[in-house]
Amino acid sequence: MDEKRSNCEKVEEEVERVVEEAKELQEAAATLINRTSSEEQSLRQRALSLDSNIRRLRSLLHSSISSTNNLLRFDSKLADKLEEDLQKAQCLIYDGDASAFLPSKAQGAFVKMFIGPINVRASRKDVQLKVKEEYNSYRDRTALLFLLFPSTLLILRSWIWDGCLPAFPVQLYQAWLLFLYTGLALRENILRINGSDIRPWWIYHHYCAMLMALVSLTWEIKGQPNCAQKQRGVQLFLQWAMMQGVAMLLQNRYQRQRLYTRIALGKAKRMDVVWGETAGVDGQLWLLCPILFILQGFEAYVGLLLLKTALVGVVPEWQVSFCGALLVLMAVGNFINTVQTLMTKSRFKAKMKKSKSKPEF
Amino acid sequence: MDEKRSNCEKVEEEVERVVEEAKELQEAAATLINRTSSEEQSLRQRALSLDSNIRRLRSLLHSSISSTNNLLRFDSKLADKLEEDLQKAQCLIYDGDASAFLPSKAQGAFVKMFIGPINVRASRKDVQLKVKEEYNSYRDRTALLFLLFPSTLLILRSWIWDGCLPAFPVQLYQAWLLFLYTGLALRENILRINGSDIRPWWIYHHYCAMLMALVSLTWEIKGQPNCAQKQRGVQLFLQWAMMQGVAMLLQNRYQRQRLYTRIALGKAKRMDVVWGETAGVDGQLWLLCPILFILQGFEAYVGLLLLKTALVGVVPEWQVSFCGALLVLMAVGNFINTVQTLMTKSRFKAKMKKSKSKPEF
Repeated sequence: MDEKRSNCEKVEEEVERVVEEAKELQEAAATLINRTSSEEQSLRQRALSLDSNIRRLRSLLHSSISSTNNLLRFDSKLADKLEEDLQKAQCLIYDGDASAFLPSKAQGAFVKMFIGPINVRASRKDVQLKVKEEYNSYRDRTALLFLLFPSTLLILRSWIWDGCLPAFPVQLYQAWLLFLYTGLALRENILRINGSDIRPWWIYHHYCAMLMALVSLTWEIKGQPNCAQKQRGVQLFLQWAMMQGVAMLLQNRYQRQRLYTRIALGKAKRMDVVWGETAGVDGQLWLLCPILFILQGFEAYVGLLLLKTALVGVVPEWQVSFCGALLVLMAVGNFINTVQTLMTKSRFKAKMKKSKSKPEF
Repeated sequence: MDEKRSNCEKVEEEVERVVEEAKELQEAAATLINRTSSEEQSLRQRALSLDSNIRRLRSLLHSSISSTNNLLRFDSKLADKLEEDLQKAQCLIYDGDASAFLPSKAQGAFVKMFIGPINVRASRKDVQLKVKEEYNSYRDRTALLFLLFPSTLLILRSWIWDGCLPAFPVQLYQAWLLFLYTGLALRENILRINGSDIRPWWIYHHYCAMLMALVSLTWEIKGQPNCAQKQRGVQLFLQWAMMQGVAMLLQNRYQRQRLYTRIALGKAKRMDVVWGETAGVDGQLWLLCPILFILQGFEAYVGLLLLKTALVGVVPEWQVSFCGALLVLMAVGNFINTVQTLMTKSRFKAKMKKSKSKPEF
């Protein structure tokens, strides 16, 4: 009897302690959340005012160098030094932990439409880099499917289906493309919010691809008779998709090496992050570029062929001409953006070389 | 000349100060991030051990009441009091700020597929409630479209299109449905991660709806001759969608009032949050339920009609029977889950009444 009572008392005591602990925990949590959010707020203000100060000073220096400002005359060596100091300070707050407290790019309508106004910005730099790494490995996996899916369809077409694709597997492929591109577009938007410098075009490109996958779903896959002629567009599209898979794999290899270089440099010395951008991957770029250009040419060719089929009247549905026009648009946009990227890279390299070999006055 | 020099010196000083400030900011940011993350880690451990302690004590009490435990015998009044204390402690950590530090529901494959492994959990309770409010207003907006879109199609059909729907606007509507349901499913998954108690079925229901919208996109909308017969399925579907819009508007009214009650109670006294669940909205529930049941009946009827059309051979495509079967499945699932929700609510109310009017021994 005594043992039972003492057991009961023990339980009673434990319950009391647990209730007390719950109250303490609640208070500790509220305190931490409030304190953190007010400290974050003050860091946000500091970061913002510092950033605008740096911008102001840089434009002041710039105006003194380009001699539009008569009240300010630096000798060029001093101006270069000051400019470099400012650039380093800017790199420090853009690439370091402080970047979490700078205002981020607004969460665009596209992301809001799908997931609402929830915050998708990681505050820690290492988490941001992990998100980018995961994005790359996701692209790797999808690139393999990108290669396998259409090639399987084409092989089955000639081996089993007697030259005539049945509708269902093609539509399955188109539905997969739609979800894939939606996911890629969402992830890239999230990367941008997390401070990635991805060119906006590549996101628009995925919007176009989403639209095309959607439209192609409503496009009736016609069978016999004259299957080869009616399915010419689908067949070309699948061939292009296969090439796209190869290009994606190559691109991923390149992007990943760039990222690893950045991470390695970032660990060694945060400030050097930007300088390391093009280190060690130049050779691959000159393999990648011709393949990208050939692919873009083929994309435009498929688009034009689709337009031709629609205009000649073999497959007179609006979906065919719409997809054709979209492919041509995407090819042109891809071409322009690849060229612009290459030009930026070579300009950046030239500047680097110049600043390294600049003679001392 | 002197003025120029002093200007230059001022700029030099400013640059120095800015560089210093950047370093300080970087350090402050790194310190805050590290300190916060270690403090969060310790709160997480405390919350976890406290939660498991409460669970252990509750099951101990339960076993003593149901007399499976001979070493522990409470008198029933004390046991009730202890049980109530534990429940309050649990409410405190589940509904208060501490809930941010409890392990969250895992980010499911669906969310990961679209947006990757980025964290979508808000740590502050008020942000979580804001997310839920925004979800409700999103549902309001879409419910209106849900009503307007199909009714416009049906009106135009009889006024302008002479009883025969053209393919394009219907496909546009189907594409809109696909994106809408994808968005809803993503948002609801995110709500779950943020601690909402939404029943899993409603999310599965949206997966089914997504699948149906996708399949219906590939379903050819046939025109004349015999348009009325061939489009019977589409027409029924649109009528059902209109009713769905009305039901969504009513449901939203109900859900929102429930949320406002919760917020109001939560502000007054956090602990009462759970008790307030069914307060003040009972009258509406008895208006909502018959409408929901009628809607579910109509959903099953449309599904069965589609199955019949497919089996009789008027529209022999697989898409028709697939959509029919899916609609029947959704109707049955909706019915079961509505009934279960009602049963939980009435059981909860009975328990509340009992505990309020319990006679003292």
